[in-house]
Amino acid sequence: MSEDTFLAWLRQRLPSSGADVLVGSGPDDCAVIDFAQPTQLAISTDTIVEGTHFSGGDEPRLIGWKAMAAALSDLAASGCTPGWGLISAAVGRGRGEEWLKSLAEGMIACAEKYGLAIVGGDTVSAGLTCLTVTVMGKPFGASAILRSGAQVGDVVAVTGTLGGSISGRHLRVEPRFAEIEKIIALASPHACMDISDGLSLDLSRLTRESGCGARIFVDRIPVSDAARDLSAQTGRTPLSHALEDGEDFELLFTLPPDRWEFLNDKWNLETPLTEIGEIVSSGLTLVAADGAEKILVPGGYTHEF
Amino acid sequence: MSEDTFLAWLRQRLPSSGADVLVGSGPDDCAVIDFAQPTQLAISTDTIVEGTHFSGGDEPRLIGWKAMAAALSDLAASGCTPGWGLISAAVGRGRGEEWLKSLAEGMIACAEKYGLAIVGGDTVSAGLTCLTVTVMGKPFGASAILRSGAQVGDVVAVTGTLGGSISGRHLRVEPRFAEIEKIIALASPHACMDISDGLSLDLSRLTRESGCGARIFVDRIPVSDAARDLSAQTGRTPLSHALEDGEDFELLFTLPPDRWEFLNDKWNLETPLTEIGEIVSSGLTLVAADGAEKILVPGGYTHEF
Repeated sequence: MSEDTFLAWLRQRLPSSGADVLVGSGPDDCAVIDFAQPTQLAISTDTIVEGTHFSGGDEPRLIGWKAMAAALSDLAASGCTPGWGLISAAVGRGRGEEWLKSLAEGMIACAEKYGLAIVGGDTVSAGLTCLTVTVMGKPFGASAILRSGAQVGDVVAVTGTLGGSISGRHLRVEPRFAEIEKIIALASPHACMDISDGLSLDLSRLTRESGCGARIFVDRIPVSDAARDLSAQTGRTPLSHALEDGEDFELLFTLPPDRWEFLNDKWNLETPLTEIGEIVSSGLTLVAADGAEKILVPGGYTHEF
Repeated sequence: MSEDTFLAWLRQRLPSSGADVLVGSGPDDCAVIDFAQPTQLAISTDTIVEGTHFSGGDEPRLIGWKAMAAALSDLAASGCTPGWGLISAAVGRGRGEEWLKSLAEGMIACAEKYGLAIVGGDTVSAGLTCLTVTVMGKPFGASAILRSGAQVGDVVAVTGTLGGSISGRHLRVEPRFAEIEKIIALASPHACMDISDGLSLDLSRLTRESGCGARIFVDRIPVSDAARDLSAQTGRTPLSHALEDGEDFELLFTLPPDRWEFLNDKWNLETPLTEIGEIVSSGLTLVAADGAEKILVPGGYTHEF
């Protein structure tokens, strides 16, 4: 299948854009967006590669979904709406038309579900498949929610359950837009990020950016069923999976205790919210059920070059 | 070398950002840019892959430069200033610290030369190297210059010389910002794009988007020395290299004849400008020195999947 044939198909298939997209995907060197009003723009990019983030044998539709959802998760974590996206696909040679279209359909399905307009991209052939999705959006509120806003005394909370995503959930990521929109509307969180490299590593990043520490209560961490199942195979504890497994794509956020109480009281979405700890002035510790406290050593997925 | 070690080095090394970058590269899930004034935003993304756009043995600094310059070329071609960029690098395993830093230095050198703030990115390890650069900018003038603006009677012109970039120039791309800024200031072009897949193929795209045709005068095409040298090895004519070789990254633009005369008269930059043809209502033809006219069949680089 040739590039031009694929692009002609893709251009028909992409979700239509709003009036603010002056030039969308296809015709030009650049997409052009009209910011008629002053605003903040949040931008993020995420790359997934065959052999690292997915296997060559995974369903192409799920690979495409994951590429899009992982990128969107960063926008949600910044408290921003899905706006505009660009897809760069280096596609393994000989994958053929059906595989490539399924990959695109997975990306498109995710973009459509969350209301992201695809305004551009680049498609090239390569020795293996490498997908980069860049996403942009505007804040739900007055400004983006950053990692650096946590304050001493804040509750530390997470959405969903943690660990074991490698068993399958990592291909079925759902960015937490509905959740963050409601969290912002009800409780104006101080800080937020998504858990993509493991709770302990990502929490260490949030506290570093905020210039503070945190105490996490072991028996409050929402360990996923997948983490428990995986534990039987790996010999690691379910807790270590919940603390260190990558690709949960849940929200990790902080807010004052009174706002947490209000939020938790009003919460009516299916995704659970859990208070897992508190922000302190320094140090990162795990507090056991008996009150014993030990240093939390950040562990999680890191790439080696 | 670990991801965190590399990112700590990178964060120190990146060019500093302007006051409109509220959150730049590093700390958060997203970069955040403040559009205090209503504006158009142009966005483009470009991917280069080992084995397709560069060889694994090429100098990493040149590979990095090319990845950045090829993406920036699309912004220049849209008549926009370099604003903000994101780099996604899937890096071949075992490349090591020196190689990776040289790659990054090449990207940074190009970004610094052209004044692009790097506001984010993603770095992962992979089976081969695949680089995606996403760039954003605002128009030099009131709005972006598109491919779709060509009008019957316009002069068709190009910057630089064409063909044979594979001999080495494809790794030393210089995006034509100074040139397009001056072209806009002096002559308000109707349409513009960069020549990345070969003059004939890219011209067919410009005329298709503009709903018109073009006549190109064979003896006016600025054939590069590299195209002539390559011709001796390939047995193809220098002209066919100038028409069909990819990765020239020169500007292809159209404008009314009187504005062309004015521009050509005032032009004082080193990069040559050449009038190569005219926009007509339909058809794409090559006009020989003796006036004989034949159909120009678009040929150039396309990817196969």
